[in-house]
Amino acid sequence: MNQELEYKGKQAKQASKALMCAGTDIKNTALGNMAQALQEQMAEILAANQMDLEAAKEKGISGALLDRLTLTPERIASMQEGILQIRDLEDPIGETVHMTVRPNGLEIGKKRVPVGVIGIIYEARPNVTADAAALCLKTSNAVILRGGKEALRSNLCIVKVLSQAIQRAGLPEGTLQIVEDTSRETAKELMKLNDYIDLLIPRGGGGLIQTVVKESTVPVIETGVGNCHTYVDKWADLEKAAAIAVNAKCSRPGVCNAMETLLVHKDVAAAFLPRMAAGMEPYHVELRGCAQTREILPAIRAAEEADYATEFLDFILAVKVVDSLEEAMEHIGRYSSGHSEAIVTENYTNARRFQQEVDAAAVYVNASTRFTDGFEFGFGAEIGISTQKMHARGPMGLEALTSVKYVISGDGQIR
Amino acid sequence: MNQELEYKGKQAKQASKALMCAGTDIKNTALGNMAQALQEQMAEILAANQMDLEAAKEKGISGALLDRLTLTPERIASMQEGILQIRDLEDPIGETVHMTVRPNGLEIGKKRVPVGVIGIIYEARPNVTADAAALCLKTSNAVILRGGKEALRSNLCIVKVLSQAIQRAGLPEGTLQIVEDTSRETAKELMKLNDYIDLLIPRGGGGLIQTVVKESTVPVIETGVGNCHTYVDKWADLEKAAAIAVNAKCSRPGVCNAMETLLVHKDVAAAFLPRMAAGMEPYHVELRGCAQTREILPAIRAAEEADYATEFLDFILAVKVVDSLEEAMEHIGRYSSGHSEAIVTENYTNARRFQQEVDAAAVYVNASTRFTDGFEFGFGAEIGISTQKMHARGPMGLEALTSVKYVISGDGQIR
Repeated sequence: MNQELEYKGKQAKQASKALMCAGTDIKNTALGNMAQALQEQMAEILAANQMDLEAAKEKGISGALLDRLTLTPERIASMQEGILQIRDLEDPIGETVHMTVRPNGLEIGKKRVPVGVIGIIYEARPNVTADAAALCLKTSNAVILRGGKEALRSNLCIVKVLSQAIQRAGLPEGTLQIVEDTSRETAKELMKLNDYIDLLIPRGGGGLIQTVVKESTVPVIETGVGNCHTYVDKWADLEKAAAIAVNAKCSRPGVCNAMETLLVHKDVAAAFLPRMAAGMEPYHVELRGCAQTREILPAIRAAEEADYATEFLDFILAVKVVDSLEEAMEHIGRYSSGHSEAIVTENYTNARRFQQEVDAAAVYVNASTRFTDGFEFGFGAEIGISTQKMHARGPMGLEALTSVKYVISGDGQIR
Repeated sequence: MNQELEYKGKQAKQASKALMCAGTDIKNTALGNMAQALQEQMAEILAANQMDLEAAKEKGISGALLDRLTLTPERIASMQEGILQIRDLEDPIGETVHMTVRPNGLEIGKKRVPVGVIGIIYEARPNVTADAAALCLKTSNAVILRGGKEALRSNLCIVKVLSQAIQRAGLPEGTLQIVEDTSRETAKELMKLNDYIDLLIPRGGGGLIQTVVKESTVPVIETGVGNCHTYVDKWADLEKAAAIAVNAKCSRPGVCNAMETLLVHKDVAAAFLPRMAAGMEPYHVELRGCAQTREILPAIRAAEEADYATEFLDFILAVKVVDSLEEAMEHIGRYSSGHSEAIVTENYTNARRFQQEVDAAAVYVNASTRFTDGFEFGFGAEIGISTQKMHARGPMGLEALTSVKYVISGDGQIR
């Protein structure tokens, strides 16, 4: 086995025992130290980031990737702000979720406990480093990070700064670690490190997530891929529908809760589609429509089947006219990634059916899919948006990083 | 891809959509039909089982395995009884677990929904067939069973009988299916059927479970392996301790919540060990002790390191004298399978520390580990006992077979 992984795995396991017993005070002190250290050692972090940026530019890395890799004083301040927000959230660990007394007098309590050791695999976004460190610490989990190789110098520097801050609060070195070997082979070994890692969370694009899901024998929470639909029903309020569609597509097209396909009932297509197209115009959205859509909007490009399966993450929208609610739900059933789906309708029965029958983490009536978000849902933090059904589904707050245990108190009961 | 798996996977996926919308009434009717059909078609099931038994005997299959494979009118009656109990439990599907109204007026409800399609891989125990079918149906999940090849004729007959009963209630054929090809290759393909199966649950021995955990890319719930400890503390009430130890070892040694290792504080070892040994005597328990144990009980066999790592599932008990609570917890940390652990003590601080620091699904003070069981915990049903931390931990009732979805109702909100 890879020596670095084995060493860090053992350190993390050891640290997770100490973290299990660490009180809220000490964890919050550590989080406060972390935020302060980012501020005080900002110059060092920016210098490390500068080296990553120069190396990336030499390799010819493109605009959007380069932007994600870039740290600025403002971005570091927002990492700092994020850590302080997490510090100020209620500590989920130790909460008694449920308590029963059995007829034989046994008291059975179900308590919230940490998961143990969490692995996080992500791409070249150094801000994820601080965020993941803070979320795991707040929930008393040790964490092993594995970031993209382009961000290695930045990540190593951030982890060094944060880890020292954590240790100043009296928590062990193994609390926060990063894998220095960014080879693919080592990443694959990390995915099979069942002896040391309890949970793996991939954060990044669809390719990364699918690799982790397919290769990992450690339990995984699948996050983030969103092929989201909005269906404008025959009984839609077309004004609401246009506002929702424009918001869902244009307010931030690069995120997973943005709309990728618009479905429109045939009876309202002629009235709705031009209105929608006018609303999207200022954003220069490229529309790709089915044959019926193009009878109404002849200037737009024809949609291919593949467009309906694509998460564009861009100002591109696939459009399809459907004959019925059933056809809309069938289309969604085929192409949805199970993230967020919306219907716009004033019809009570259709609204209910859509919410009941569509199988997705978040199912909306008369609202934009853009609300699928831990902060918008009131969780105060977000680890990601789970598109799987086990353990956690939809926006994940701190609770998603916890497990439970049963604590049973008796006075000599036998069975 | 294996044609049988692909066909049955599609059927199950289709059925799971119908099941998602099936009301409690129709599901309970189907469960009633299933129980009745087992009664009415008992002769046919027993005849199929007879053929399995004869084939098994020819292959020279041994006593315990043969016993598990055997169906009798009594065992079929108890399968029937189990189905009726599951019918009478409250339906978890559709329950609103949580509901919030956000400042912008969005109503966000968290509802309990089925998982979708569940795969169950098990050994040659035909009673699991009926049990798994009923649990999955009650929770609106379609199920694909894959039982041991020795029980194939029995399983096919039971599934035929139950499936007809389910279809008489108006539910689709894909609700309950069994894989007829019992080859290892097909089992491995089943473990990678991510397109059709949402969750795999292995039920059986440690070897089967580890294979499924290691090979499966579908999410798995790991169940059942129990290397359980009881620690008799320096401040134990030795009378309680002896009763608990005898119960934990002897009441049913072949199950996962039975004690496998007894840890005893050195200061009470001389007083406790002979008393414990006397209590175990009527059950002919083979004791295997450390050097200090054998100073007090010289007649017993020496324990090897491997004994502490073994789930005996038999009238064998490893015994070790420890110097302190810390040493006991360290031993448990090293060898525990994370199932059930107990301390016997009258010391408040030690009890609290043990419950907080020991990392297992169920942690007991002054009670037998044998209580880790869905029925004893008051769940009314049990799918198994999860020894993993994600999704479900400890005894799993119906809820463990459910997921959630967010259902959001708005009146035109945009972000």
